Amino acid sequence: MVYLGVDLGGSHIAAGVVAENGRLLAKAEGKTPLHPSAEQLADAIALLCREAMAQANVTPASLPYVGLGAPGAANQSTGLVEHLVNLHLDNWPARALLEERLGLPVRIENDANAAAWAEYRAGCLRGAQSAILVTLGTGIGGGILQNGQLLTGCNHNAGEIGCMVIQAVGGRRCTCGRRGCWEQYASASALVRDARAAVQKNAQAGNGGLLWQLAGQDPARVDGRLIFAAARQQDPLALRLVRRYIAYLGCGLTNLVNIFQPEVIGLGGGISAQSDLLLPPLRKLLAAQRISQHSAVQTQLKAAELGNDAGIIGAALLGVDAPAAP
Amino acid sequence: MVYLGVDLGGSHIAAGVVAENGRLLAKAEGKTPLHPSAEQLADAIALLCREAMAQANVTPASLPYVGLGAPGAANQSTGLVEHLVNLHLDNWPARALLEERLGLPVRIENDANAAAWAEYRAGCLRGAQSAILVTLGTGIGGGILQNGQLLTGCNHNAGEIGCMVIQAVGGRRCTCGRRGCWEQYASASALVRDARAAVQKNAQAGNGGLLWQLAGQDPARVDGRLIFAAARQQDPLALRLVRRYIAYLGCGLTNLVNIFQPEVIGLGGGISAQSDLLLPPLRKLLAAQRISQHSAVQTQLKAAELGNDAGIIGAALLGVDAPAAP
Repeated sequence: MVYLGVDLGGSHIAAGVVAENGRLLAKAEGKTPLHPSAEQLADAIALLCREAMAQANVTPASLPYVGLGAPGAANQSTGLVEHLVNLHLDNWPARALLEERLGLPVRIENDANAAAWAEYRAGCLRGAQSAILVTLGTGIGGGILQNGQLLTGCNHNAGEIGCMVIQAVGGRRCTCGRRGCWEQYASASALVRDARAAVQKNAQAGNGGLLWQLAGQDPARVDGRLIFAAARQQDPLALRLVRRYIAYLGCGLTNLVNIFQPEVIGLGGGISAQSDLLLPPLRKLLAAQRISQHSAVQTQLKAAELGNDAGIIGAALLGVDAPAAP
Repeated sequence: MVYLGVDLGGSHIAAGVVAENGRLLAKAEGKTPLHPSAEQLADAIALLCREAMAQANVTPASLPYVGLGAPGAANQSTGLVEHLVNLHLDNWPARALLEERLGLPVRIENDANAAAWAEYRAGCLRGAQSAILVTLGTGIGGGILQNGQLLTGCNHNAGEIGCMVIQAVGGRRCTCGRRGCWEQYASASALVRDARAAVQKNAQAGNGGLLWQLAGQDPARVDGRLIFAAARQQDPLALRLVRRYIAYLGCGLTNLVNIFQPEVIGLGGGISAQSDLLLPPLRKLLAAQRISQHSAVQTQLKAAELGNDAGIIGAALLGVDAPAAP
C-alpha cells in the first residue's frame, strides 16, 4: 500500500507518494499561489497531487485517502482549516474542495503535527509513547504525542510551543502580540536576526570578524549555515551567538521536559543539521536544569530524521494507525 | 461502594473515606512525623487510615483498595515514591509498607495529580476530555489530564508546571535551581512575599497604608487573605500587587493554553477562594493573549470546587475509571 501526502506552506506546496514505512517514492513541488481564493488553493494542491501520482505511477484507485498538512487549525470533524496562517483564508473547506477534485477521502492535520506524526511513524520519535517534535524555523513549531495520539486540544490549536513566554518582562515582541515568546529567542530566524545585528555592530566598530568575511561583508547574507560554519572555525562572535542561542533553546526545552517528561524530544528544522554542535550542550543543559534530576528515566533529546520531507510523509501516513476517525 | 484516600503532605497527613460521587464521608488528620523513617511514615499513615475507617464505620473488607497521594514521583509500576519532596526519603516503598499494614491493595499517585483526578471525577474538570488543574500554594502544582488519563510522563514527574521559566534573564531564583520559574511569581507564596516586601518598604517611607494597618503593622502577618481584603477596600498598594500577580499568573496560564488548548483549566489552592477577584481579569487576559483568538472553541477557566480535600478525594478515587492498572 502507498499513500499520498501534501505539505502546504506559506510559500511552497509539496505533494508526495509515500510507502508505509515512510519512504518518499515521488515528490512534486510548486509555489503557493499568491493571495489565492479557496478554490485556487485547492486547484494548486490537486495539480501537484496528480503530478506526484504520475511520477510514482499510482492511480487514485490504489490510494486509500489523501493527507494534507496545513499551517493552521485543522478541524478533522468539519474538514475546515479554520485559520490558515499567512494565506489569509479563514474556514478554508480543505476536505470538501480536495475530495471534489481528487475523488478520494481527504484527511487534514496541522503541518507541525503532521511532521511530528512522520517522525513518530518513521523517524526519531518511533516507538515513543510520549514525544514532542520541536521544529526550529521562522518560528518554533510543535507537535505533541501522547499514547500514540497527536495532542490537538479542544480547538485544534494545541502545540503552539513557540508562543510560550520565557521573558515576561522586557521580552521581545512576538507576532502573536505577546512579549518574550520562546520563538523570538530560539527559532532559526531569531538566531539569524541576532547574528546579523551583531556582525553589523562589530563591523561598524571596525571589528568584522570571520562571520562578516564569510558573508562577503553583507549582513543580509548571514544565515544559519554561515553562523555554524564560523563557530566550527572557533570564531569568537559565532561561538558566543551559538552559546546564547543554546541557552535560550535549552530554557524552553527544559520547560517542556518539566511539563511533559516525554520519552523523546526531537529537534527538527534546517538547523538540526547542526545537531553535532547543538545536541551535546543541550543534553548537558537539560541534565543540569530539569526538575527530574533524581529520576533513573529521562527524556531523550534526538535530531529529527526526516528533514523537510517530514510534512509530506506525516500527511501521507495520517490514516495509518491513526486512532481517531478523520 | 466507598473508598479510602490519603493525602500525604510535608507537614500534615489526612486520610478520608469518600463516596463514589466524591463526597467526603469521614476525615482523620495528623501531623507528618519529623524526619520519619520509611516505616514510621507508613505507620503514621496507617493509623490515620484506621481512624478514618472507624469514623465512617467502614471495615477494610468493604474497601477495594487504599489510594495515596504523595508529594513526589509516584511510580505505579514499582510502588515506590522515588523522591519524596521535603521528607528526605528516596525510593520510599509506599505500596509495600502500606499493603502490609492495611491488608489492602494500595494505589499511589503524585499529590498534584491526585487533586486533578478529584476535580476531574467530581469537581471543576468534570466531563472535560483535556484539562489542567493549577494549584496555587507554596509553589504551583499541576495535574494534567488527556483523554481521561493523568499525564505522568516517562518517569512520573510530568506536570511540574510551576517550574516553567517565564523570566529567563534576570529572573528570581527557584528552589529547582533555575531562574525565573513561574511559581516564583505566581504562587500564593510569591504574592505574599511580594506584599510583605512592599508594605515594609512603604511603612519605612512613612506610608504604611491599609494593608499595613490590617496586618497590625507586622509584615509577617501579611497573608493572602489580608491582601485580597485590602484590595476589596480599594487599597492602592493591594490593588497594584493583585494586578501584577494576575499578570504573572495569566502569563503562565496563557503558555499552558497555547501548548495544550485544554477544554478546562481549574485554579485551585487557598487563593482560589478569591476567584471573584481573580477569574474575570484572568479570563480577559487569556482572551487577549492566547494564540487561538480566532477559534470558536476556547479553554474555560474555572475555580476548583473541592478545596483542600481534593487530594484525599482524588487519592480515594484513583481506581475508579482509572484506565491503567496500578
